[in-house]
Amino acid sequence: MELLKEKILKEGRVLKGNVLKVDSFLNHQMDIPFINELGKEFRRLFPSDKITKILTIESSGIGIACIAAQYFNCPVVFAKKSKSINLDSECYRTNVESFTHKCVYHVFVSKKYLNEDDVVLIIDDFLANGNALLGLMDIVKKSGASLEGIGIVIEKANQPGGSIIRSKNVHLESLAIIESMNEGYIRFKDE
Amino acid sequence: MELLKEKILKEGRVLKGNVLKVDSFLNHQMDIPFINELGKEFRRLFPSDKITKILTIESSGIGIACIAAQYFNCPVVFAKKSKSINLDSECYRTNVESFTHKCVYHVFVSKKYLNEDDVVLIIDDFLANGNALLGLMDIVKKSGASLEGIGIVIEKANQPGGSIIRSKNVHLESLAIIESMNEGYIRFKDE
Repeated sequence: MELLKEKILKEGRVLKGNVLKVDSFLNHQMDIPFINELGKEFRRLFPSDKITKILTIESSGIGIACIAAQYFNCPVVFAKKSKSINLDSECYRTNVESFTHKCVYHVFVSKKYLNEDDVVLIIDDFLANGNALLGLMDIVKKSGASLEGIGIVIEKANQPGGSIIRSKNVHLESLAIIESMNEGYIRFKDE
Repeated sequence: MELLKEKILKEGRVLKGNVLKVDSFLNHQMDIPFINELGKEFRRLFPSDKITKILTIESSGIGIACIAAQYFNCPVVFAKKSKSINLDSECYRTNVESFTHKCVYHVFVSKKYLNEDDVVLIIDDFLANGNALLGLMDIVKKSGASLEGIGIVIEKANQPGGSIIRSKNVHLESLAIIESMNEGYIRFKDE
């Protein structure tokens, strides 16, 4: 998506350790008209009228999912993270290893808000190692819902998440794919 | 706000320990057309055209703030929580005691996204003990920005947050104020 690439080149900052900061518009300060454009693009890429839920994970996916949901006419469900194991039998649970925080999160969704009648589009801001997405896919599987696809704002192709998820025959769309980056330099994957 | 009260009466569940669950529409599953109505109501209550930022705190405030921001034509900034002290000198920092999780969070906002030129509306889902809001107010003060007001979806009048914040001469608007509740019973404060 050209608009997103331009925004990343203009406002993104590459830090040491393969970190891309886009906190001026995506995950600390949020540029709402811009995120609406991302939402419209997700709708174009996932035109099915069968989608019943948009699923994301706290925290930085929530705002993007809420804005995007306006183009899908369906509710958002966000998976919650907990450091302690949630023993509530009313929840689907999974574990997610955090690369950034070097710990394991327990992630859960109430059984009330996801079931076998649902058709789910997963939306998140970043795809790097893919652990959060694999956790969300596990929750969708446990619920018996169908997975329509996964929409990602920024994928980092030099980390393995995209390959792992594509190998599972999932309809994955990333609005921008970063092939490589260094301080002051970002190269996108050709589309 | 009548629409919100009806929704709380229809879908809210009162659990032991003075807990109101509204996770079917507000803070786990999110009813986006309904949250748009909350956003319009916040706009009606805070009509100033000087507001430059909507400030909230992760996680459950983010979606509400993003939807509401569409009626204010300004960006959202969400304060981030961290268990470890963030020593980044580029941030405004404060501490928030969590009643629910029995711990202290370090909360921060990048100095890039809040400064003395900003006029800030704080938005959050719940007001109970008021600790999160006092933390956000402290961050606004440290940034030198002006605080236009605070918009809350649900205030629990049997906890002290509302009184504490009103005593500081802040323009606080809660879309629904719960006076008392028991299992199967919710009473709103008369307006």
